[in-house]
Amino acid sequence: MSYSDALSKTLEDLGAAEGSVLSVSKDGRTYRGTLMPHHEFSSPDVIILKMKSGYNAGIRITGSAVITVEGKPAARERAETAVEYRKGLPKLVLIGTGGTIASYVDYRTGAVHPALSTSDMVNAVPEIRDIANIDAKVLFSIFSENMNVENWQKLAEAVAEEINAGADGIIIPHGTDTMGYTAAALSFMLGDVPKPVILVGAQRSSDRPSSDASSNLMACARFCTSGKRSGVFVVMHDTLGDDSFAVHAGTRVRKMHTSRRDAFRSINSLPAARMDASGNIDFILPGKPVSGGKAVARTGMERSCVLLQYYPGMDPSVFESIFMNSKGIVIAGSGLGHVNENMIPLIKRASDRGAVVIMTSQCLSGRTNLNVYNTGRDILAAGAVTVWDMLPETAYVKLMWALANSSSPEEAKKIMKTPLAGEMSDRRTEND
Amino acid sequence: MSYSDALSKTLEDLGAAEGSVLSVSKDGRTYRGTLMPHHEFSSPDVIILKMKSGYNAGIRITGSAVITVEGKPAARERAETAVEYRKGLPKLVLIGTGGTIASYVDYRTGAVHPALSTSDMVNAVPEIRDIANIDAKVLFSIFSENMNVENWQKLAEAVAEEINAGADGIIIPHGTDTMGYTAAALSFMLGDVPKPVILVGAQRSSDRPSSDASSNLMACARFCTSGKRSGVFVVMHDTLGDDSFAVHAGTRVRKMHTSRRDAFRSINSLPAARMDASGNIDFILPGKPVSGGKAVARTGMERSCVLLQYYPGMDPSVFESIFMNSKGIVIAGSGLGHVNENMIPLIKRASDRGAVVIMTSQCLSGRTNLNVYNTGRDILAAGAVTVWDMLPETAYVKLMWALANSSSPEEAKKIMKTPLAGEMSDRRTEND
Repeated sequence: MSYSDALSKTLEDLGAAEGSVLSVSKDGRTYRGTLMPHHEFSSPDVIILKMKSGYNAGIRITGSAVITVEGKPAARERAETAVEYRKGLPKLVLIGTGGTIASYVDYRTGAVHPALSTSDMVNAVPEIRDIANIDAKVLFSIFSENMNVENWQKLAEAVAEEINAGADGIIIPHGTDTMGYTAAALSFMLGDVPKPVILVGAQRSSDRPSSDASSNLMACARFCTSGKRSGVFVVMHDTLGDDSFAVHAGTRVRKMHTSRRDAFRSINSLPAARMDASGNIDFILPGKPVSGGKAVARTGMERSCVLLQYYPGMDPSVFESIFMNSKGIVIAGSGLGHVNENMIPLIKRASDRGAVVIMTSQCLSGRTNLNVYNTGRDILAAGAVTVWDMLPETAYVKLMWALANSSSPEEAKKIMKTPLAGEMSDRRTEND
Repeated sequence: MSYSDALSKTLEDLGAAEGSVLSVSKDGRTYRGTLMPHHEFSSPDVIILKMKSGYNAGIRITGSAVITVEGKPAARERAETAVEYRKGLPKLVLIGTGGTIASYVDYRTGAVHPALSTSDMVNAVPEIRDIANIDAKVLFSIFSENMNVENWQKLAEAVAEEINAGADGIIIPHGTDTMGYTAAALSFMLGDVPKPVILVGAQRSSDRPSSDASSNLMACARFCTSGKRSGVFVVMHDTLGDDSFAVHAGTRVRKMHTSRRDAFRSINSLPAARMDASGNIDFILPGKPVSGGKAVARTGMERSCVLLQYYPGMDPSVFESIFMNSKGIVIAGSGLGHVNENMIPLIKRASDRGAVVIMTSQCLSGRTNLNVYNTGRDILAAGAVTVWDMLPETAYVKLMWALANSSSPEEAKKIMKTPLAGEMSDRRTEND
């Protein structure tokens, strides 16, 4: 949504541009601040001023409002283009993919950079250069809902390449929509990766005062440079404030809210670590330290896989063709991993022809168990495999990988039931 | 799973039956208690004794264990068969459907009623008769994963019939797997129902000391007899203890854990009320009091509807037939309600031929908004409709109802966007 024609014209006539310092008098009050970009959430007749306090004020420009231009946009202070490479600091590589995080405002000047390069992103957090030498690259620039299997493969290859070229850690700014799926894909593809590989997003773009982009990025850099953990993680805000970050295992994390800053949650696991704004890290889960080994990307993925949610009224005849043609089927069943008895013959037919059918739970939290009720036992007898406390989304990603990295459905089933990247509890150690 | 052949024979030889008082000596210790039924979780060589403490002990019967029978099963104390109908008390009708809640142990005698009638269920909570006259009926006896649309319809009709015959409230014991779906279906079918209609389940069957069946049932009765709220609700434990119950709106509730007692959660809404074990009710959401009106069941449902979750790699060609043949399609999209750009032409083709396509979010919490990003605007332009903060499961149930209770896709879309039973926030009152 953009400004109304009338408001556009008013601003144009005044010579007001984004970054201009305006004062607006309305209803006996005067607001003074830097004109911010008109964002998607605003009405066409509202302008947004960044006040001295740092907060943004939205002001509806009605007939009585008077706008005065008090200052021009400050010239943008570009970070020095030739960044000094400081000896002794670890080397982090940012691999940009796009998403909400890839937009920022230079708060010193009010100037706006709505679409930006990965190095711009680093320049928005200058203190990051105090703890690491940063290389920044752009691999894709897409919204994460458009990330696909090929993107995952290219990303895994790029990560392995950078690690093998000397990176001490990889930071991947990513749209939040499908960040959990990408994190799971990288977890399986990169296996025992010897360095930290961190996906990071922002729930609020940087043109909003509440943006979490910079603070999330700094937390990533601190986690990477700690040297204490290798593996694939997602770093996001742990709370609504700017003072706590959660480091989630890449296979356990799920976006559980459309917009909150603390939307990302570890499911069926504690976060791998929590961090405060000063960079103190509380390691919660055990993990592997960094090592000098090589990174290997095993990027094979069987595309003929589907993820389905069971629901009452699910009609087997509607899903017949999918069950009869897919090589892998993950079902988010009800409760402990159930479907209606009408669906069970379809599971059997799919299994009999060599498809791998995996049962997970749409409850998300908790564990599937097909040995409790008759329905579950019938589902097992039909050939389905249950994967305990693995998320449906992670099971879908893992199944694509397992089918491509095995020579038979039976071997793929074994891979599915073996914890590889923290994606499921080891059932042998459970006593519930 | 049942006892091993050897253990079965030992128990048979001893004349030990469920309810017998046994003492078991093993490894220098002696355990004394009432023999409980062998449940699905136990190994074939384990017997379960209910100890004097009320807790159950599982004892593995190895070669060295010595079992002695110390008492026969107590004669079952049947609740008086002719229950006194007490004037002045409200009348509640229990309509049984099956599920984990429909199994109980008489803790006074140790006798076990693994499959039980609805009146048995009431007899297990004798104090319920202090506050209401109870009629108990069995409509179905099925696991809730097998509940289907026809069951919902019969249930709604039975509820309306009982209310119109004088019931002051309806309690529906139900399996937990799909209780949320049934609650949503009843919410739309029963509309402005003049009395409370409460679905209730148990996460632990009554043969386990931690069962929540009785306490949940008593909480239902108390809420029903308060007279303060009509409508369709789900009552379950609010916490892990036995001292707090949540009353959820039937359209907002979702099973969020496979096994915890507090698995049911209101999503995008507070619970309608909370209750303590003494029956104190804290009404949190506004609602309608009971009235003397008639109940009407509008049970029409369009079966040609599907619920799909979007995932990266979702292949439009795999879902082509479903999109081209269904009358209603609910998609749990990523983030604010997105799909991959490859899926958008399929949404357009389905919409163009008259299907109603509804976008929800797989994040579950938060609100869809298709006006923020280009992807969302393209999805809207393709003809999809977004339903704000409605759960995907509730949207699926509502869509079946809306299509059957409208004369055109456009009218069904309008119904989908109009809050009818608390299923979505009224967007006009939101300012976020």
